[in-house]
Amino acid sequence: MANEFKVTPWTVTGNVDYEKLTKEFGTEPLTDEILNRIKRHTKELHVLLRRKVFFSHRDMKWLLDEYEKGNKFFLYTGRGPSGPVHIGHLIPWIFTRWLQEKFDAELWFQFTDDEKFLFRKKDEVGIGEYTKIAYENALDVIALGFNPKKTHFLIDSLPETAGMMYKEAIRIADKITASTAKAAFGFDDSYSIGQFFYTAMQAVPAILPSALKGVNIPCLIPLGVDQDPHFRVARDVYTKLGFYKPALIHAKFMAGLLADGKMSASIPNSTIYTTDSPKEVEEKIKKHAFSGGRTSLEEHRKYGGNPDIDVCYQWLYNFFEPDDKKLAKIYDDYKSGKMLTSELKDYTIAKINAFLKEHQKKREKAKSQIEKFLFKA
Amino acid sequence: MANEFKVTPWTVTGNVDYEKLTKEFGTEPLTDEILNRIKRHTKELHVLLRRKVFFSHRDMKWLLDEYEKGNKFFLYTGRGPSGPVHIGHLIPWIFTRWLQEKFDAELWFQFTDDEKFLFRKKDEVGIGEYTKIAYENALDVIALGFNPKKTHFLIDSLPETAGMMYKEAIRIADKITASTAKAAFGFDDSYSIGQFFYTAMQAVPAILPSALKGVNIPCLIPLGVDQDPHFRVARDVYTKLGFYKPALIHAKFMAGLLADGKMSASIPNSTIYTTDSPKEVEEKIKKHAFSGGRTSLEEHRKYGGNPDIDVCYQWLYNFFEPDDKKLAKIYDDYKSGKMLTSELKDYTIAKINAFLKEHQKKREKAKSQIEKFLFKA
Repeated sequence: MANEFKVTPWTVTGNVDYEKLTKEFGTEPLTDEILNRIKRHTKELHVLLRRKVFFSHRDMKWLLDEYEKGNKFFLYTGRGPSGPVHIGHLIPWIFTRWLQEKFDAELWFQFTDDEKFLFRKKDEVGIGEYTKIAYENALDVIALGFNPKKTHFLIDSLPETAGMMYKEAIRIADKITASTAKAAFGFDDSYSIGQFFYTAMQAVPAILPSALKGVNIPCLIPLGVDQDPHFRVARDVYTKLGFYKPALIHAKFMAGLLADGKMSASIPNSTIYTTDSPKEVEEKIKKHAFSGGRTSLEEHRKYGGNPDIDVCYQWLYNFFEPDDKKLAKIYDDYKSGKMLTSELKDYTIAKINAFLKEHQKKREKAKSQIEKFLFKA
Repeated sequence: MANEFKVTPWTVTGNVDYEKLTKEFGTEPLTDEILNRIKRHTKELHVLLRRKVFFSHRDMKWLLDEYEKGNKFFLYTGRGPSGPVHIGHLIPWIFTRWLQEKFDAELWFQFTDDEKFLFRKKDEVGIGEYTKIAYENALDVIALGFNPKKTHFLIDSLPETAGMMYKEAIRIADKITASTAKAAFGFDDSYSIGQFFYTAMQAVPAILPSALKGVNIPCLIPLGVDQDPHFRVARDVYTKLGFYKPALIHAKFMAGLLADGKMSASIPNSTIYTTDSPKEVEEKIKKHAFSGGRTSLEEHRKYGGNPDIDVCYQWLYNFFEPDDKKLAKIYDDYKSGKMLTSELKDYTIAKINAFLKEHQKKREKAKSQIEKFLFKA
């Protein structure tokens, strides 16, 4: 496998070396010391922390210092509504929901329909299409069990959202030069002035509650590490405007079925959507999930499989088998050849389908709840 | 006088050669043919048309064609609220009010507090300062007698305005590259992403009523010619989005007291504010108004003055003496030496003070009317 990879907010290609990425982006590894400090407040550690799916951070020490002084933080995360939600998207949100519960935190959740419009590939698609997708995606977010009293959805192009955000976006945009945007995002002069401006909109929610209330409130942003460049640019700006820099906690990408790059909604075969039927999940995994197994049953029994490159194992590790003992046994059994690829796949299919059955029920219910979550001035 | 001049939306320097500017900008001169067509509908011609203070246009023929087919237009103009309003600012608005009355037209009036913030010189001034100035400036606009039932004020940073405009601004910004903005406005990479984006906000009101109503309505924009580059950029965009290109009608700049460049609120001595007292007006004109008179009374009587470079005469011509016969007499008397500079100044002072007395009364009344003018979704 090539050692080259590229991570920007709009492209992730190659096999990401997370250690290298941490250095490149200038973030800090999420150490056991920090995990232990979190655990002191949460009693237990979420599987996504224990397994280091969240692996890197900015300013978590400061955030915990503030929290321990009694200065509560709010959460900010979001979704670029480009298409249906897949199970990889859910990872940071599931973790965010856990944080909301454990820290009794407000959450601002931004749906960036403006971004997805500005960075779309098909010129003929209107911004309204992305707004519709945002509403669809919102059902998946609600289904995860966020507290409607403490959760505020921002859909950028909606008047209620844009009206409240625009002034702050301008204050941020005022402090970012075209030159900085080019360096951070790889733009050139052929990019639109909307694309240049957009990062300011993504930066706003990290200070919006502070700006609205006229007090400085710490913010924690759980996010996919590909989104880090937006906040790398915005961090200095926040300080210049008199706000705290938000703390960030970065997630790895959920491997796609095809085992090359992250799960991507733009490659349907690489993806399990939250609305897939049990049958579809079964078929996708059986047909497409990249396997660490040997080419024949005989060889597999004799030499064993390679769980470290097996997509099903990655998914169990990352989220679907939270029981450490069971996971260790799967690892050993697969590696020794005792567990076959078909068995590993069946196990994973069952886990995912059990999760999706519940999720789809809650997603259906969410349709009547969406108004409660939309931000109102 | 140097023949060099520079006209951008943010700088006007040198003595503007309007004929040259028309060619440079690619606009068309406002011919008698067009004036006669306007007169057919308005019965009389406004002094600002008769005297060619409005001197250039884009697509006026098309606009009149549409109007004659029964396709009514709306008006759009605006104000960059950088400071108090001076009498030069009023010129295009007075004309706009006349157009509203004669053509029974809706007017969208934009106060670009975002622009004035993004292009400010003093880093420490907040956007809120410009919003305050917008409210102050709005009083001058209301004082001119616009119809509150047909006039909609947009103050860009206000939630009601920004909420309605943002989506359309993004659709426009999507179609303008950084490269285009650089060419039109002289930006480089040291400009902020807010400055790059801003032109999209200025472009919005020309299509906003069409977008809100879902029908295509012709638009006429009376404006200072320095604002033309925004619409030069936006014209192609409007078409791509399925809207009409607006028609534009361009005003010359009101000469400053100092007779170099336009009247500018950033050079107080060059300027008569709408809130100046009769005494202040008198002092400013007596002390600072650039005169076409001779250095001594004797020489003036003998050789006569030069009305063509005299600021007071320019003001009488541009607006304050609408009576053509009286104006011609002043021209002749001043040129022959019969009229002295002090007499010309006194005449002008009296005219301006009479105008300001009425204006200030209406401006005071406007304080209770502003809510009626602010755009509500």
